[in-house]
Formats: sequence, C-alpha cells, structure tokens
Amino acid sequence: MTDPVVPDIQRGWVLHAPGDLRLEELPVRRPDPDEVLVRVSAVGVCGTDKHLFHEGRDSSKVVTDPLVIGHEFGGRIVAVGKNIDPARIGQRVSVEPLMPNWGSREARMGRYNLDPDQLFCGNPGYDGGLQEYVPITADNAHPVPDGVSDSSAAMVEPISVALSGVDKAEVSLGGRVLITGAGPIGLFAAQLSIASGAGEVHVVEPRPSRQKAAAALGATVHPSLEEAPSDVDSLIECTGVAVVRHDGFFHVRPGGRVVFIGVGDQDANVPMLPVIEREVTLHGVMRYHFTWPRVIAMLAAHRIQTDSLVTAEIPFEDALREWTQPDPDEIKTIIRIE
Amino acid sequence: MTDPVVPDIQRGWVLHAPGDLRLEELPVRRPDPDEVLVRVSAVGVCGTDKHLFHEGRDSSKVVTDPLVIGHEFGGRIVAVGKNIDPARIGQRVSVEPLMPNWGSREARMGRYNLDPDQLFCGNPGYDGGLQEYVPITADNAHPVPDGVSDSSAAMVEPISVALSGVDKAEVSLGGRVLITGAGPIGLFAAQLSIASGAGEVHVVEPRPSRQKAAAALGATVHPSLEEAPSDVDSLIECTGVAVVRHDGFFHVRPGGRVVFIGVGDQDANVPMLPVIEREVTLHGVMRYHFTWPRVIAMLAAHRIQTDSLVTAEIPFEDALREWTQPDPDEIKTIIRIE
Amino acid sequence: MTDPVVPDIQRGWVLHAPGDLRLEELPVRRPDPDEVLVRVSAVGVCGTDKHLFHEGRDSSKVVTDPLVIGHEFGGRIVAVGKNIDPARIGQRVSVEPLMPNWGSREARMGRYNLDPDQLFCGNPGYDGGLQEYVPITADNAHPVPDGVSDSSAAMVEPISVALSGVDKAEVSLGGRVLITGAGPIGLFAAQLSIASGAGEVHVVEPRPSRQKAAAALGATVHPSLEEAPSDVDSLIECTGVAVVRHDGFFHVRPGGRVVFIGVGDQDANVPMLPVIEREVTLHGVMRYHFTWPRVIAMLAAHRIQTDSLVTAEIPFEDALREWTQPDPDEIKTIIRIE
Amino acid sequence: MTDPVVPDIQRGWVLHAPGDLRLEELPVRRPDPDEVLVRVSAVGVCGTDKHLFHEGRDSSKVVTDPLVIGHEFGGRIVAVGKNIDPARIGQRVSVEPLMPNWGSREARMGRYNLDPDQLFCGNPGYDGGLQEYVPITADNAHPVPDGVSDSSAAMVEPISVALSGVDKAEVSLGGRVLITGAGPIGLFAAQLSIASGAGEVHVVEPRPSRQKAAAALGATVHPSLEEAPSDVDSLIECTGVAVVRHDGFFHVRPGGRVVFIGVGDQDANVPMLPVIEREVTLHGVMRYHFTWPRVIAMLAAHRIQTDSLVTAEIPFEDALREWTQPDPDEIKTIIRIE
Repeated sequence: MTDPVVPDIQRGWVLHAPGDLRLEELPVRRPDPDEVLVRVSAVGVCGTDKHLFHEGRDSSKVVTDPLVIGHEFGGRIVAVGKNIDPARIGQRVSVEPLMPNWGSREARMGRYNLDPDQLFCGNPGYDGGLQEYVPITADNAHPVPDGVSDSSAAMVEPISVALSGVDKAEVSLGGRVLITGAGPIGLFAAQLSIASGAGEVHVVEPRPSRQKAAAALGATVHPSLEEAPSDVDSLIECTGVAVVRHDGFFHVRPGGRVVFIGVGDQDANVPMLPVIEREVTLHGVMRYHFTWPRVIAMLAAHRIQTDSLVTAEIPFEDALREWTQPDPDEIKTIIRIE
Repeated sequence: MTDPVVPDIQRGWVLHAPGDLRLEELPVRRPDPDEVLVRVSAVGVCGTDKHLFHEGRDSSKVVTDPLVIGHEFGGRIVAVGKNIDPARIGQRVSVEPLMPNWGSREARMGRYNLDPDQLFCGNPGYDGGLQEYVPITADNAHPVPDGVSDSSAAMVEPISVALSGVDKAEVSLGGRVLITGAGPIGLFAAQLSIASGAGEVHVVEPRPSRQKAAAALGATVHPSLEEAPSDVDSLIECTGVAVVRHDGFFHVRPGGRVVFIGVGDQDANVPMLPVIEREVTLHGVMRYHFTWPRVIAMLAAHRIQTDSLVTAEIPFEDALREWTQPDPDEIKTIIRIE
Repeated sequence: MTDPVVPDIQRGWVLHAPGDLRLEELPVRRPDPDEVLVRVSAVGVCGTDKHLFHEGRDSSKVVTDPLVIGHEFGGRIVAVGKNIDPARIGQRVSVEPLMPNWGSREARMGRYNLDPDQLFCGNPGYDGGLQEYVPITADNAHPVPDGVSDSSAAMVEPISVALSGVDKAEVSLGGRVLITGAGPIGLFAAQLSIASGAGEVHVVEPRPSRQKAAAALGATVHPSLEEAPSDVDSLIECTGVAVVRHDGFFHVRPGGRVVFIGVGDQDANVPMLPVIEREVTLHGVMRYHFTWPRVIAMLAAHRIQTDSLVTAEIPFEDALREWTQPDPDEIKTIIRIE
Repeated sequence: MTDPVVPDIQRGWVLHAPGDLRLEELPVRRPDPDEVLVRVSAVGVCGTDKHLFHEGRDSSKVVTDPLVIGHEFGGRIVAVGKNIDPARIGQRVSVEPLMPNWGSREARMGRYNLDPDQLFCGNPGYDGGLQEYVPITADNAHPVPDGVSDSSAAMVEPISVALSGVDKAEVSLGGRVLITGAGPIGLFAAQLSIASGAGEVHVVEPRPSRQKAAAALGATVHPSLEEAPSDVDSLIECTGVAVVRHDGFFHVRPGGRVVFIGVGDQDANVPMLPVIEREVTLHGVMRYHFTWPRVIAMLAAHRIQTDSLVTAEIPFEDALREWTQPDPDEIKTIIRIE
C-alpha cells in the first residue's frame, strides 16, 4: 500500500569515511510487509553522530560501508507494508531507532536495549534519519498527537536516554538529585527529575549559557561539583569527565545511586569508600526500552518541553556545517527537511 | 531539661466508652530521657477517630481503658529528656505517631510499620494529640520549617498514608493513575500522583463538593467508576466500598497494580480474571515508614498543598461537635489548640 | 530445508465440541521462514486441557473451530524454515507454546506473557501438541541436552508455571514457604522452593498418594491448612479452592506474599486484615516469560526431577481415555508418540 | 538479674597500638536494662582484625583508645538486664555485632547497616569478642539451636557478609555465578549460591588448598580469571585485587551484576564498556541487615556447613600467634574460650 507520490530517488547525507559526509542521491526502499515508510521532517544532532563523523566509529561500532547517519528523528508515514493498516498513512510519528532481535535472550528477559545484535538507525547496518525517506518496522514508528511539534518528535530519542537515567536513579517524591553536565541529556534529566517530584534538583555546569538554561527549567545551578550539595539520593552523570565521575560518588548518601550516561574514557576510577561502606550503587545507561509512549504522553501533557533546548534549526542542505563548524553555544540543533 | 512554664495539669479529650468523649483535666507527663514534650497546636480529625468514638475500636484495636484520641498533630517542643539536645526547645514539629519496637523482626527487615507490637498515638496504649501536651520519642518529632503551617504539620500524617499508597502504586513518569474516592486521602493521593509526573490522574467521586476539590488540584474527575478509563497503570482505592473494590480491578492494564487504602468490609470480593490472566497485583497500606522527611520536603517546596483540603478550623473546646454533628461537606477539619 | 521423510499427512487429536475429541488425519504444515517443524515425542496432560474438553473453553478462550489440543510437549526438529540454520535438524527440543506479538505494549515492557493477543499452542488459534508434527517459531523450540528425557522436555511447561509462581513468591535463602495442593504444579513449586534454599517448605494436601510424593521430595506435609504453620514468608496457592484461598492469607507473616496459581471460581474472597494491616500482597500467575533456559539448566543439573511426578505413560492412540476415564491417583500422565 | 557465678574480673585481648595486642585483666560490665551478658565460647579471626592489629585502623575507623577486638563470636547468656526475660539465661547465642542508632535515617529507611554512627563490637567505640564476657543489646544475641555448634555460631557473622553479597548478586534458580577468591567469604558465597539453586557456580582461586575446598563444596574451580566462563549472571568479587576487579566485569552478561566484597585499593578501575553498553551494575557490601535468623535457619537445616572451612581451633591464651605467625594454609581459625 504505497502512496503514489513517493519518489524512487531521494537525497541523504552519507558518511563514507571519517570526515567525509556527502549529500547524495539514494534510492527509496519500499517498506517490507511489517514496515512503514516515513518521510522525515526533523532530525536532531547528537554527540555520537559527531563521533561517527570524526572517528568513523561510535564506541564499539565501526563504520565500514557508506552510512546515512542520524538517529533522532520524526516525520510522517507515507506508505505502509502489506501487513500494516493503510489508515496509518498520513500519521505523524516519532521513530524509535532501536530494532532488537526479539528472539534474543535480552529481549525475552525484558531488556531489549541490551540485545547485542540489535539494529539501530544511523549506526552501521541500518541507514538513519538524515535522508528524506526511512523505511522502519511499523511498531517503531510511534504516533504523536498534534500538540507535539516536529522538533519535539525528533527529541523523543534524547529524552528517552534521560528518562532511562532518571528511572535507574530511582528519583522519588521529595528526593534530592544531582545532575552533572547541562547539555541536552542533562537538561532533560533535570526536567524529568523535577517532573518526578524531586524536592531538590541540582545541576553542575560551568558554562553560563547552559547554567541559564538549567536555572530557567527550575534547577539549582552550581558552577562546580565542589559547590554542589553532598548527601543527594542520586547522581546522574552526564559529562563523562574522569574527575567528575570519581568525585561525584562522594556527593551521594548511603544507599544512594550513581548513574553514568556521559561517554568518556574507556575506564573510570571509582572510589571504594562510597561503593563499599555506603553501598552506593553504579548503573550505566544503554539507550532505552519502552520509553516512547511515556515520553510522548509527557510532551502531550506539557510536563516537559523542548523549546528552550532547541536553540537552532537549520535546513537539510546546510547540515554539514553542524559537523564542520559547530557553534558551542547551541544546546541542540534540529535539521529540518522541508 | 524542662521549660519552667510547662504546667502540671492540662486539658484533654478522653474517650471512656463508645460515644463517651469528655474534656478533662489530666496530668502532664514529663519526657523520658529520649523523649521531647510537645505543646500541641493543631490536630486533624480522621475517619479512624470516628470509628474509635462510635464503636470503641479501630480495626483490631479495642479501647478498654480511657484514651486520649488523635494521631494527626503538630506543635512546638517545650521540654526535652536528658539525652536530647536542649536546643530543640522551641522547635516546631510534626509528630509521627508510630513507635515500633526496633528489635522486632519487621523493623529489622526495614518495614517498621508492620511491627505488630507498635505503639501508636491515639490508639489503645498511648494517649494521642487531642490534649495540650504530648511526650514522644524525640526521633518521632520531626522539625518543620517556617513556611509549613501548623495545619500542614498536622496533615503530614494523612499525606504519609497517601504517599505510602502512591509508592506502592509505583506511579511513574507519563503513567496513568485512577483514584477512587476524593476524601482527604484520595485528594492527597491525587496531588502526589500529579507531583510524581503521572501523565493522567483520574478521580472517581460522586459528591459535587469533592469533585470540585479534585478538579481544582488538576485531576480529571468522573462521577462513577463506569465512566472512568480502563487500562490505567495503577488504581488507588480510597473508598472501601465493596463494588468499587471489585470492579476497579477491571480498569487496570495487564501488569498493573491495585492499592487498597480505604477501610471497608472484613473481606473483599476480588475478580480473578485481572489477577490471574493479567497479573494485576493487590497491595494494602498499613500506615507508613520513613515518610515524614519526604512529605515535609514536598510541603516546604510547595509541591503539594493542604489549604484547599482544610475546609474548617474549630477551637479545641468545640472538638466534640466534630463527632456528634459532623458536616458532610467538609473535607478535613483541624482542631486548633491556642 | 525439509527432511524428505516428513509426510504430508499425519494423525492428531482434534476437539470439535465439548466432549467430542477425535483422532483424525491432518495435513502437515511446512515451516514458515522463521519456523521449525517439530516431530512430537511426548505430551503432558494438564488441567486446562480437561476444561477445554469438557467445557469447550479455557477461562476466557472459547473453542469455536476444530482444535488440536496439548501445550506441554517436546520432540525433535525434522525441518526448518529458510531463515533457520539447517544444522538444527535432528535437535531435541522442548516447545515454549506462548507466541506473543513482539510489538505489543506488554512485550516491549518485558512481560510478553501478558500480551492479550498472544498465540498459544493448543488454545483457539493455534493447533497444539497432540499431533505428530507441529510447526513453531524457531525461538520457541528450545534445545534440550541428552541428559534430559523426552518426558522432562514435555514437563518444562508446567515447571515454568511453578517457577513463575516461585519467582513471584520471592522465595529466599532460609525462608519459609507454604504450598497448598500437591498436584503437578504444587509438587514442582515445592521442588523449586527447596532448590531456592528455603529453610522450610510446607505442603498442604489431603490425598495420601500426593502427600507421599510431596514428602519424598523433601517437603513437610500437612493434611489440612489448619495444621500448617502460620507466619510463612510466602504462600503458593495451587488448589483454587475458595476457603483455602481465603484462609491461606492468615498463614503469611507481615510483609509476605500470596501467589495464586490454581484456577477456581471467578471471584475470590480475600480477607482484608492480612492485606491491609499486614501488607500481605496478592499476585497471580499467567504462564511465564523467559523460563525455558532456566528450567532446562536445572533439569540438566539434576536440581529438579520429573520422574516421581510422571506416574503414567500411555500411547498416543489411547489418549482419549485420559479424558474419559482419568485415574485420580495419577499425578501426571505423559502421552508418547512413537 | 545476674547469675551469681559471673566474676567481676575477666581476661581479654586488648589492642593498644599497631602490633601491640596484650592479654589483660578487665572488669566485667553488668548488662544495662535492655542488654544481656554473653560468656563467649568461640571467636573467629577475620581479615579486618588483622588490619586493626597491623595498621591500627579498619578502613575509615581508627583505633585511638585500647580496644578488645573480635566481631565473629557466640557463647551463652549468663545474665540479663532488668527489661529482659530471665528465662534467656543459659541460652546459646550468636552475636550480631552491629548496633545501629534506630533513629537514624538509614535505619528508618530499612538499611540499618548503613547508619554512619553505628556501634560495632571490636571496632573503636565498643569492645569485641576476644574477652570472656560481652554485654550486648538483647536483640543482638540471637538464639541458636542445639544442632548448631559453637564454631558455627561464631561463623554466622562472615556467612552474613556472604549472604548480603549473594542477595545483591540476585542469584536465581538456574543462574550462573562467578566468585573470585576462595577465602572464607568466597567459600560461603559459593555454598549460598549453590543453596540458592544456581545452575552453575564457578570459583576462581589460584591456591591449591582453597581450590580443593571450593571443589569439595560443589563449585567448578578455575585457577585464573581468564579460564573462567564469560557471560555469567553475577560476579561476586572477594579478592580486592585491582586487575580482578577490572577484568571481572567482562565476564558478566548484559544486564548482570558485579558485587564487590573484597577490600583492596581505595579506588577501583572500572571498565565502561560493560557498565554502559551492557548495563552491568556495581554493588558494594557493607556488613548486613536482618541476616542472623536466615543464616541460623540454614545452618540448622544443614543447607550450609562450616566444618570444612574451620581448619584450625586454638586456645584463647594462644590467640596472639594468629596475628604474629598466621598459617597461610588455614582457611578460618576459631579461638576457643573454655
């Protein structure tokens, strides 16, 4: 069931080698029986996209073949596979880029984000969102209501990362949370912590523009970790900086939690006094599972917002400059595909 | 360490038999070494106080000796036992009325609210808050900051009951909660659910005055259970009504939770289709443990409020009419001791 | 990839209407791309099979079309779909009969057993194990090592039900467990509780033959609930009998758990004193998720056994008598397909 | 209520300074109202006792005043305080050495082991078990049945440490556990893992005498970590060795757990690939809470044993040589007080 206006050829940004990202003509793949075809409208740019561009790898995944990058995106369904209800054509959606193998042990255990053989849009093995048309498993194209903008639909992905961190941090009513780093993930984690009823949400961030953003969202801001309170229930670490990773543990109360989201060195130096004598636990965040419906519900109910974080929108044709001339004052840039 | 102005004789409302509640002169007991003496300023009236008055029993606890009732109260410390810092004299406090035996299995397991031998202010074995002076374990007199009113200090107890229910309901970001009954506990549960980031909070309540209160707090109101949504994550049952207890289970999604707070018949008729085929779990609420600091933090941060629930304040001398001529339109009455 | 010896026609027991179960010739369906074809060797008979036979329904599922029953079975792979490694041909397997829709909310949340649209071998919508050849999703055909017999391979299903109950009961090292009913599920629950390190495992069972089986497995046996200890950590209810369901709650310590596995009346009468004042929680068991590898590991390591429970083996041709002339002294009957 | 035969003077081993441990005459303190007086019969020697002896400190606790060491011990009640039932005189007991402040936040939250102001027998602030008579809170003197020996009563403490680790490791039926280090804690962890129904229990240990002990208990032994399986559910780290701490993470499956019990360097180098991409969590163990009744139940039921671990028993008078001339081939030495 394909809408006749879907073209056979489209444009997409293809990564050929480190530093070699080109806008090219590509074929449009028609959806398989259980897929839909999404016309992309907005794509967010993430730190891992920058790793892919500069280093040709994202953690353990190495780019060997030409790859369309981009994993934060939404758009509109323009065609459906034969097993999918054609009424979905025209639906606005946010795309969950993670496609596990449902037969895997991890998926069967209820943690599909940990399947080592998962496919992921914009990672080696599956072309991502920086193209006009993306075919994707229908279940991964989550409907968004009218009140949620295209930019917000693209932001469900990073909000999902932050939500996974906040869930692991077990933020509770009246609790105290400390977040290190006020980039997009840290700012979403702050919003989600406040929305969870935390009594105090503290953010450590040295850059004034980001301090301002954090304060505007209702967090208490500290320029450095030393000035932040000790004895918080949970620390959500979003910088990846070695000394912050280490010293952060001393800011957590006995029985509290440290959650590492930020990517940094291959090893982290972890202090044993808080881990052993205070039983502070350490948790890492690998993407997300079952977050899209929750995040979309919160966006629809205006419990969290993306407006103050999306500080720039640029046209699709200009996407390259986000990699070659990034503006350090921007928090999140959205690439629009008209 | 006793403030000289503490008198030897005070006034208190003593329950002698069902229906026989008298204002009498009573001795003021001086604090034991680990206790403080609290001059009570505000006392809330709870449904269980009415059971005690009318039936001479509260569930399994039977009144056999004269008893000062009242378990929702706060005031000011006027004297301290010899092991307690005298700097606490003058401190405004909210009293946690539950005093477990810390050697009990339940307390050692981390659930001190389940100790079967616990003492409880206003229950047989320990005189409660409807008197001018109450001696209490110092750890049970929790400091409240200036921004929290005397009425709010007295309300920490019912808010703690609601918080225990919300905790067991595992209300989460973006979730859907259904609360049956908009009395004080239901209204606090609604506030706490909203503060926890629930995407939707539904309240079932037939009485217009309470519907109005629930709506003003931000909940979606339904006059009857049939009109409430099905497929919620959690149901917090605050009515004790048999048919609501039964039918409520059908409104919960597979894997969701039902929490019974409301007191009703000795047995409940529970439908097996949701319990077995959908694995909806059932949890009851027996008071609370470790809730005072969390509730006081939320009150201090204005994340929850008591103003719209305290619909009447009456002087200590007039307390009896709350039992003999209760006004069904009131939500919560506070008795003030000047 | 089909083994040439697979015939086109086979025999199977087809339920046409309540009480009307016939051995018939049926076509052999070839495996779809992601399926394998299993030649069945052993099938267990379960109480729900008897409900299907006598009433034409199993709880909410009603038989409207002819149906091959049987959901406890194992065998050998004789053909594979085109996406499956042909090396699996010849492999001995135990079949997990539950096939969820992996796009469902419940599957994505990690509880695939709760997907309301799941398919299930031997339930309306999917022919079961009482036929010679069953095509099934390859991931549902779990390999079993040589040390695990055909009967044991068929028993992984009821052991999985018991394991789900033991997991929900949170049986822990040194704990006390009470199991009501020593049918197959109860006896497996007793074995699993002992294997979990419970300090005491009590079984209530009035029938001498089953008492003997329970005692032989290491449980302490009581002829009636009144004689069983109170104050256990967990109760696993396997009878479905109304009075046992009700009174069992009074045998559980504060903060303990009741798990209902046994099927009985549509409603259960649940006492509120243990549920509310002691916070005893109620959990139901709907099949299982991610249990096959764990159960097969335990069978392989001889941590649990099936020999003393399989009290009869009968040939395929004689299967009907298991429904029409059941022997109440048997615990579990296995139907062998040579 | 004091038994007349309790003397006023006793003998005890007093640590005055690093390396300076002397057998001295000491007064016998009579029990306070809520205490009992225990005549010690057996004391285990633990690694932390050796830290105290050699360095005058145990982690963050520094010895400044003369201190009787020893925290693994049991004996018989010879006198009781006035609030305690005199029937307890004569009772054989195992002493839980941890005495929290029950008003502390941590105790009220249900984790009394994390109270930073806890007292602990044999740590600075409370004289320990290497003396003839120890007065202790009655609730901390746990009765042991006749079938549990004096040595086993003394071993409840290290078994409790191992149990805390096994609990945090979430060892489950059919799971796979890896334990690094076969000292007393590692060997008890292995026994408890087997008793919990783990399908496979692997122990890494280079020393032949300890390998033999682990194998005799039913574990699979590997001389080095490299030879141990990867993909286990849980790792229980009992060596404190930096490279084992680091590399161990790579042996855990996605979503599994690492538990650090062993004491080592102040910081640990933790690899981020397993922590972040596989969400392997890290947990530390600080003593125990609510373990005594569970451990005693398991000892009484012969689910675990101490005989093969207690490789030496020496008289009280000779205790010093356990510090000055320890035998590296011994696993656990018990000091007997006749």
